[in-house]
Amino acid sequence: MKPVDIIVKKKFGGELTRAEIEAFVRGCLDGSFEEYQLSALLMAICIQGMTDRETADLTMAMADSGDRLSLSQIDGVTVDKHSTGGVGDTTTLIAAPLAAACGCKVAKMSGRGLGYTGGTLDKLESIPGLRTDLDADAFIRQVNRVGLAVIGQSERLASADRTLYALRDVTGTVRSLPLIASSIISKKIAAGCESVVLDVKTGSGALMPTHEESLHLARLMVRIGGMTGRRFSALLTDMSQPLGAQVGNALEVEEAVQILRGERGGALLDVSLALAESMILSSGLMHSQAEAAGALRAALESGSGLEKLRAMIEAQGGDPRVVDDTGRLPCGEVRTDVPAREDGYIGRIEPQDVGNAARSLGAGRYRKTDVIDPGVGVIVNKRVGESVVRGEPVFTVVSRRDSDTAEAMRLLERAVTVSPEAPDPIPLIHEHIGPDDCAGRNRGDEFA
Amino acid sequence: MKPVDIIVKKKFGGELTRAEIEAFVRGCLDGSFEEYQLSALLMAICIQGMTDRETADLTMAMADSGDRLSLSQIDGVTVDKHSTGGVGDTTTLIAAPLAAACGCKVAKMSGRGLGYTGGTLDKLESIPGLRTDLDADAFIRQVNRVGLAVIGQSERLASADRTLYALRDVTGTVRSLPLIASSIISKKIAAGCESVVLDVKTGSGALMPTHEESLHLARLMVRIGGMTGRRFSALLTDMSQPLGAQVGNALEVEEAVQILRGERGGALLDVSLALAESMILSSGLMHSQAEAAGALRAALESGSGLEKLRAMIEAQGGDPRVVDDTGRLPCGEVRTDVPAREDGYIGRIEPQDVGNAARSLGAGRYRKTDVIDPGVGVIVNKRVGESVVRGEPVFTVVSRRDSDTAEAMRLLERAVTVSPEAPDPIPLIHEHIGPDDCAGRNRGDEFA
Repeated sequence: MKPVDIIVKKKFGGELTRAEIEAFVRGCLDGSFEEYQLSALLMAICIQGMTDRETADLTMAMADSGDRLSLSQIDGVTVDKHSTGGVGDTTTLIAAPLAAACGCKVAKMSGRGLGYTGGTLDKLESIPGLRTDLDADAFIRQVNRVGLAVIGQSERLASADRTLYALRDVTGTVRSLPLIASSIISKKIAAGCESVVLDVKTGSGALMPTHEESLHLARLMVRIGGMTGRRFSALLTDMSQPLGAQVGNALEVEEAVQILRGERGGALLDVSLALAESMILSSGLMHSQAEAAGALRAALESGSGLEKLRAMIEAQGGDPRVVDDTGRLPCGEVRTDVPAREDGYIGRIEPQDVGNAARSLGAGRYRKTDVIDPGVGVIVNKRVGESVVRGEPVFTVVSRRDSDTAEAMRLLERAVTVSPEAPDPIPLIHEHIGPDDCAGRNRGDEFA
Repeated sequence: MKPVDIIVKKKFGGELTRAEIEAFVRGCLDGSFEEYQLSALLMAICIQGMTDRETADLTMAMADSGDRLSLSQIDGVTVDKHSTGGVGDTTTLIAAPLAAACGCKVAKMSGRGLGYTGGTLDKLESIPGLRTDLDADAFIRQVNRVGLAVIGQSERLASADRTLYALRDVTGTVRSLPLIASSIISKKIAAGCESVVLDVKTGSGALMPTHEESLHLARLMVRIGGMTGRRFSALLTDMSQPLGAQVGNALEVEEAVQILRGERGGALLDVSLALAESMILSSGLMHSQAEAAGALRAALESGSGLEKLRAMIEAQGGDPRVVDDTGRLPCGEVRTDVPAREDGYIGRIEPQDVGNAARSLGAGRYRKTDVIDPGVGVIVNKRVGESVVRGEPVFTVVSRRDSDTAEAMRLLERAVTVSPEAPDPIPLIHEHIGPDDCAGRNRGDEFA
């Protein structure tokens, strides 16, 4: 099985066999495919697509290409959640403790911020002392004891995905449904969870900006996940504006804590509750949406969700007092408002610009080696559709020094549009996709 | 202009600008495109195609990527011919001397054998003493004095093509109309000829096996050649069986000499005459086919074609006596017949198998560094449609030792089919394509 024969087969739109796909994935690691051969095949896959069978085979081959974690020593059905990435998307820090408070075993591996999007690990590490580099034994023990642990993904998990992802980034082959789906799901499978809830974003700040493509991706991942024998479900949620009101690592922890304390509501809480509900249903703990919703509401009102977060922080070496006093979180001293330039309604708040503004302040990285500043970011005071008067602050920039804010101010001024009339409302949760919602659908058009 | 942006544009089927194409070609040489980026873009071009404008821009950018030869010091209109490659395709050694005898200035750069196909340089070098590494001045002087010179292509001609070709070979991106056309034409333009006659092969032994694809390639090359300001024309000729009766370097020189002496005819002569006719018309020396055909017939009968070959051999340091006595050419001592297994008609003689048989004897290379044996090869005693009786030799293997022939015998036995009935005859020359034959045609479907 020569690399060039496999490449030519896909170039002409052929369906690769499992053995061919395994040779490709092995080739990422043992050098039997040169980098220029991998990239030629990735491009052919991008353009010609893959069938579900090929995508599932690719997923399993990648899951098997590195370490695999066994969570069999965890008592109960383990559940994970995964977001395709957004701005002000702090749902893990809210949904996971609430689901754990309702009895879920949340064993979650998270990533760092990527580009303009934030990452749960970076957010958690803004809590003084908190560690995310637990080994497998400590991770499993903590899930059994607390019901909840969030750690960093091992570099040895789905090793081939690491090679392919780096190559895709520089060869224009990132946007491909089978490549995205197999990359995400292979890591979830290697991480060992029995059920996974996917939060697939849609809108201008999402990986797949159109509703149609996001829906295809969500359905594809639920199907492929099911083909590998796990229980996958997905929500399609809005990322046409930042989800939370605070963007930046400690700022997002603060907002999550305030929500779990019952002091704040809004879009971030609504999406978090929907995700937690799916986690409860997916793990089989409860069987009706109403039951799960009631349990979550109780966990929020009783403060048991907040207590799960506190217990997790403590178990991972962090300062648990942050849940009582968010003033213990790092925070930039300088606040600079970005005022509205005219009267009207907020017509648009571009997530990419807001995410990049936070990044320019130091909340994210431009290079892998950059050190982030956990205490800086952007507060988003308005949501799309709200009225605004000239001079009212739409954003508040949180920084260390006045001199750091120029780029953020420029991006934020560009991010917002004020319109004379209120725009049509955009739904926050577009769709619930359960394992039974995508079986038997026509699949041909989903691999464009 | 970042590589990844150019790649993504082509991935989605966009039309690249001249500046983008020039950045790509420059990137082959200065490292601004990594190899894995070049191969991703090549694959995207293979699948999404290129417009004529893009193909012409790619052609000119590649022609400009290395040395360019000026033939302005040659008296008269220079003419070159180029074949897409075949088995027993010795047309250059017949058509070029005949065209020169009719007044053409034939300034030809040739290549070496590639895969199962032979190369004119290797054939010429089987003539004792003959050199093909003339410098530009000597080349131009010889064309002025003799009317004919055939030399090797400088490594510094169209340098980007060399990089891309090597990469295409190992990334499954060889078969692509715009990539093939730009590769061939860029080298012809860099080599400086004013008019070029292309011999595009069709049939199972051709680069593009189907008639339709070969025709598309021929038309595309004539159009692109015309867009660069040169006069290109093409013949579409049969390569569903070996063209000449002898395959192997000195064996092919022998057959060419015998044809120029008027001792042999057949398919090889017919295609050579058609090509020489196109060379004469293309260079503007004569204006009607009948006139050119008459002049060529006279050059053949008078022996003036043979004398041009003799003069060329002598000018390039070779032993000119080979044209009187082909016994001076190297020749293997052992002859082994491959007999027909049954009575009937020859239904098929597979050119690839015959070419590979000759290669296995030492007439071609498996690695660039292999040294060929000029004296070995295969004599093809029959053509498709001829009757044969059981035991009659279809092929005669010419080798150095009995022990060298096993692989050749195996391939040759596989190459031939004997049928109870004569197959339908296949035309030898399918089509003449002049510059006016492809203007204004629908081009969309030609980049599949």
